[in-house]
Amino acid sequence: MRLFESCLSRVKPLSNHYSDLAQKRLDSQIRPARSLGMLEEMVAKLAAIQEKEKPSVERKCVYIFAGDHGITEENVSCYPRAVTSQMVYSFLAGKATINVMARAAKAGVKVVDMGVDHDFPRRDDLIVKKSGYGTANFMRGPAMSEEACRQALEAGISLAMEAKKEGIDLVATGDMGIGNTTASSALIAAITGKPPREVTGRGTGIDDEGLKRKIEVLSKALEINKSFLTGPLRALQAVGGYEHAGLAGFVLGCAAERIPVIVDGLVSSAGALVVLELHPHMKDYVFWGHRSFERGHDAVIQRYQGRAILDLDMRLGEGSGACLSMQILDTAVKIYHEVATFEEARVATRKILEERNV
Amino acid sequence: MRLFESCLSRVKPLSNHYSDLAQKRLDSQIRPARSLGMLEEMVAKLAAIQEKEKPSVERKCVYIFAGDHGITEENVSCYPRAVTSQMVYSFLAGKATINVMARAAKAGVKVVDMGVDHDFPRRDDLIVKKSGYGTANFMRGPAMSEEACRQALEAGISLAMEAKKEGIDLVATGDMGIGNTTASSALIAAITGKPPREVTGRGTGIDDEGLKRKIEVLSKALEINKSFLTGPLRALQAVGGYEHAGLAGFVLGCAAERIPVIVDGLVSSAGALVVLELHPHMKDYVFWGHRSFERGHDAVIQRYQGRAILDLDMRLGEGSGACLSMQILDTAVKIYHEVATFEEARVATRKILEERNV
Repeated sequence: MRLFESCLSRVKPLSNHYSDLAQKRLDSQIRPARSLGMLEEMVAKLAAIQEKEKPSVERKCVYIFAGDHGITEENVSCYPRAVTSQMVYSFLAGKATINVMARAAKAGVKVVDMGVDHDFPRRDDLIVKKSGYGTANFMRGPAMSEEACRQALEAGISLAMEAKKEGIDLVATGDMGIGNTTASSALIAAITGKPPREVTGRGTGIDDEGLKRKIEVLSKALEINKSFLTGPLRALQAVGGYEHAGLAGFVLGCAAERIPVIVDGLVSSAGALVVLELHPHMKDYVFWGHRSFERGHDAVIQRYQGRAILDLDMRLGEGSGACLSMQILDTAVKIYHEVATFEEARVATRKILEERNV
Repeated sequence: MRLFESCLSRVKPLSNHYSDLAQKRLDSQIRPARSLGMLEEMVAKLAAIQEKEKPSVERKCVYIFAGDHGITEENVSCYPRAVTSQMVYSFLAGKATINVMARAAKAGVKVVDMGVDHDFPRRDDLIVKKSGYGTANFMRGPAMSEEACRQALEAGISLAMEAKKEGIDLVATGDMGIGNTTASSALIAAITGKPPREVTGRGTGIDDEGLKRKIEVLSKALEINKSFLTGPLRALQAVGGYEHAGLAGFVLGCAAERIPVIVDGLVSSAGALVVLELHPHMKDYVFWGHRSFERGHDAVIQRYQGRAILDLDMRLGEGSGACLSMQILDTAVKIYHEVATFEEARVATRKILEERNV
């Protein structure tokens, strides 16, 4: 069995055992029952994923999957494709928005070149899993060859397996790639069957005319690739990007390795969608970090009855929404570990009152 | 002029000067314009409140206002009133939910006894601003005397003035008081004119019958105190609590001292409502930390066209929602200070590429 298929077969439904234990402890802490709402649900879910009574989110890491896109030939973005490699340099220099967010969340950042149209100098902090120098323009047929797509999927899986070996407790997904909201909307439309106008937004900030053009490009592309769009993996190959394939493999690998994964906005979710479609229990391993302002993201979240942790009108990508939500998850786990139980508080109060009466 | 009135006269509208400067810097950073949504709005608002091009949220503090309530005689809560003082002891011991959240946010915690029915032993970390040992049962007339209410308001103001002297950059409000969701709903109904059933929730977790009783109690109480409910301050005296008065004074004091204040859920918002009503620019100084699950909170937020930073179904009080949102504000400010501009990134990339060609 090949890596992808064997990985898929390792994804199991969550048992209630650890989530029930976690909820029991939460209920024993000094506050009204269930008064922390989603924070309690998150802790219980973490416990179930990690199969631990004491879940840990100590070691956190954001994985940014970068790639270029042939579809940029169709003038669908505000920025030239060279910005993809420039932003990779900024990530490596620690000077981009995601770097600041990751420092705030005490998370590491790993940058993965899945298919940027640039040769980076070798350096230890850049993971090179290149499947090509940008995808082909999917207005003229599939974006990737079957081999390149599978290679990118397996690269994503291998990163999850390495994360497990490194002892990483919680990961966030991120993306960088000029043109990748176009590919994401195409992928979401192809897989969900929704019309392009319902799942296409302004990306980096195109105007009304640009948005109209983007929707037209997508409609045509779906028509051109029609014979290809017979399932999530074929759709990925036809209209996705190398980073989408990397993201899909990574999310799958995390589920197989029981690493809780926070999926970021539109692009990460489009990648995750591919594997969420392939297994009914994939969604149990996923947290939705932030509800993107970018049209199309809701379609994915709602498809799996999800609810994002944050909703702050962001639309940056880079893993920003997922990374910001790490601080919320981290705090939820700290509460779980550190807040006194009713019994402990009673004992402590009694002691204070007794000392006072002496 | 008395302290309250002089403080009210010091609240000024925000100028665009500093928010424009802040937005200009945000726009120059390496990401699509306005792609951080609410985070950018928060930074611009902080700059305007603090009148600084470089806003700071370095020194943060949560203020928990505690008090007891005569209305607990009407059996409106799941917990006995002794829990108020027990929770104060837990706050002081650093073992409650808010303490963990404050540590995660690197914020201090100040506990203020506004009117708990208990004499605490003297200790440096408890601020005593007692106006009474619990309010009177407002089913039999006003909860507070005019003097006690004013004293509590002024105590809140004085805490804001001290915070300014201490150099605190950002504060969050919190509350503790068995019975205080009942008083909060009464206050909100009295001030907004909404019927009690629309602004009353389950508080610490009462059942259907309890909720029905709570709404009946509120309806009767509003009838009994009708002649009193002629304005926000009189409503506060009639159906509020000492902690509501402290919160109202504190929020007012923060606006006068230009300290950004994150208002927590139902109880804090009911206190803030009193002063928000009295000045059209009070709302400029307020952030809504978290949209409470408790019915009635929305009525306040919507009245001022606000939008909460977080929405996680929490309903704890203690300042928990406000404190959790501090981490988001803190990260937004770090982004503002640390992310490279397009110009800086261009220079850095050029350097890397040149070195490589040498």
